[in-house]
Amino acid sequence: MPAAHLPEALGPILEFLDMAGIAVFALSGALLAAVKKQTLVTFLFFAVVTGVGGGTVRDLLIGAPVFWVHENQTLLICFGAALALWLLPARLWKGKTLLWLDAAGLAAYATFGAAKGLAFGLAPLPAFAMGVLTGCLGGIIRDLLAGEPSILMRPELYVTVAALSAALFVALTHYAGVPGDVAGPAAFLAGFALRAGAILRGWGLPVYSR
Amino acid sequence: MPAAHLPEALGPILEFLDMAGIAVFALSGALLAAVKKQTLVTFLFFAVVTGVGGGTVRDLLIGAPVFWVHENQTLLICFGAALALWLLPARLWKGKTLLWLDAAGLAAYATFGAAKGLAFGLAPLPAFAMGVLTGCLGGIIRDLLAGEPSILMRPELYVTVAALSAALFVALTHYAGVPGDVAGPAAFLAGFALRAGAILRGWGLPVYSR
Amino acid sequence: MPAAHLPEALGPILEFLDMAGIAVFALSGALLAAVKKQTLVTFLFFAVVTGVGGGTVRDLLIGAPVFWVHENQTLLICFGAALALWLLPARLWKGKTLLWLDAAGLAAYATFGAAKGLAFGLAPLPAFAMGVLTGCLGGIIRDLLAGEPSILMRPELYVTVAALSAALFVALTHYAGVPGDVAGPAAFLAGFALRAGAILRGWGLPVYSR
Repeated sequence: MPAAHLPEALGPILEFLDMAGIAVFALSGALLAAVKKQTLVTFLFFAVVTGVGGGTVRDLLIGAPVFWVHENQTLLICFGAALALWLLPARLWKGKTLLWLDAAGLAAYATFGAAKGLAFGLAPLPAFAMGVLTGCLGGIIRDLLAGEPSILMRPELYVTVAALSAALFVALTHYAGVPGDVAGPAAFLAGFALRAGAILRGWGLPVYSR
Repeated sequence: MPAAHLPEALGPILEFLDMAGIAVFALSGALLAAVKKQTLVTFLFFAVVTGVGGGTVRDLLIGAPVFWVHENQTLLICFGAALALWLLPARLWKGKTLLWLDAAGLAAYATFGAAKGLAFGLAPLPAFAMGVLTGCLGGIIRDLLAGEPSILMRPELYVTVAALSAALFVALTHYAGVPGDVAGPAAFLAGFALRAGAILRGWGLPVYSR
Repeated sequence: MPAAHLPEALGPILEFLDMAGIAVFALSGALLAAVKKQTLVTFLFFAVVTGVGGGTVRDLLIGAPVFWVHENQTLLICFGAALALWLLPARLWKGKTLLWLDAAGLAAYATFGAAKGLAFGLAPLPAFAMGVLTGCLGGIIRDLLAGEPSILMRPELYVTVAALSAALFVALTHYAGVPGDVAGPAAFLAGFALRAGAILRGWGLPVYSR
């Protein structure tokens, strides 16, 4: 099967996870633009960069064509997310909304990144790393652009969440033979649940203290 | 026509716009090194990274060979810009020089990025986005490296300028059939004029205020 | 000789330099995670991003397959470095350890980056620039992620060190015909010695002072 057709082979549920990851990261980017009192055009810019950033780096690393440059759909999703945030009442976005959107994007991108890595023939360990790196990248790029302290440095679990989703997907599909459309949602939900515990209850791993 | 020959098809005026964008971004990078009291070698480094940064990402995204790695000319332009800044009297660079150089680079790169995107077969919306993203990237990378607040976050119009140049170029060439060597200067000048209004008169769009 | 086989043609000593550069940059990334009191998973993340960051960008720029995605070895080196740092007594890492690891990574990556650029057919000036850019990138990415002031902006020589190693390698192999396995260690040692002088004695070039 030629490489260009591989993404379709990932199955509809993983495709949905990809779109959902793009949409929630785009929302999280636009939300940071709102917090920073920016214009609508900057909302759109942040939505696009945060929405497609992680996946773009993933595609460059695995040698795939960058997923959003040959169709309009992905950019329209990002533009829609930014517009929705601009138009809808601000009280919908108050409080910890940014953290929850970021959590969903993190788990979705980590899962889909590992899946696409395996689909492009990566060895299991690099496929796992691809999920972790590209899952975390959207939030990293967003925070760098806005001059915020990186979400990586927050005390609760973050990279670990991406590692759980990516490792679970690789283990289930590559080693246990579970189909991707089952392993994908399972890996996403496990990562999202872990991040939820981190946000709500401050779950963390022991930190270096020497 | 094979992809490797497409850039030549962009025409001499767009090629000139590309070189001009590289030179002014290189100057703006070297100027920030001057503000930060760096050495000549760091001047050269900042000139290269700022001068070629946006175009490098553009080429990676559209799957083109990175434009500066197979010839010496581009790097020599960047080196020349850094040397000129090092040697010439500092009063030439005082005040708002960095903003004006950045304005020219922004409009030139946004126009040329959209043009190269179309030349490599991108759909109109991604070609537009390519112009915006890669137009803004030179300044973003420069500010990140120097630890400056990002130019994106300044109150006046910035991303909007890149969006105007890129949208105008795509509209004129793709939809209205205007030749690139006419549409290119028009799109550049429109963007530069808008940024000039933003710098001189503080033109801006309404910001998010809820 | 097909491009995919070129890296092997670099010879065993340059290959060793590459692995050594990855390992010390990985250690420097994990060490910054330790300074920032992070978890083991964040140690691993920083080790990977810092260890492979510069080389990844190098491979993207020269059009080579990204070196770490089709085998497990590179990631295992990074994981081993992070684990060693987590487990071994902290007094081994106190003081200026981060600077020394970074110095070794800088000189090794600058040398190997120039070598790989030449091996992929780049012109001498871009091959030199490739060494400088990718040598400096590991430290830049590490500091950006951690929210540290960039190592580029420190007063002592830094970019100059990468420039010395890269220029020496290009001059010795491309112009003087010295074999890579001799020129590589020479270029590495010259750069490392220069950085050592910068760290120990504050060696520097004149800074811009107008």
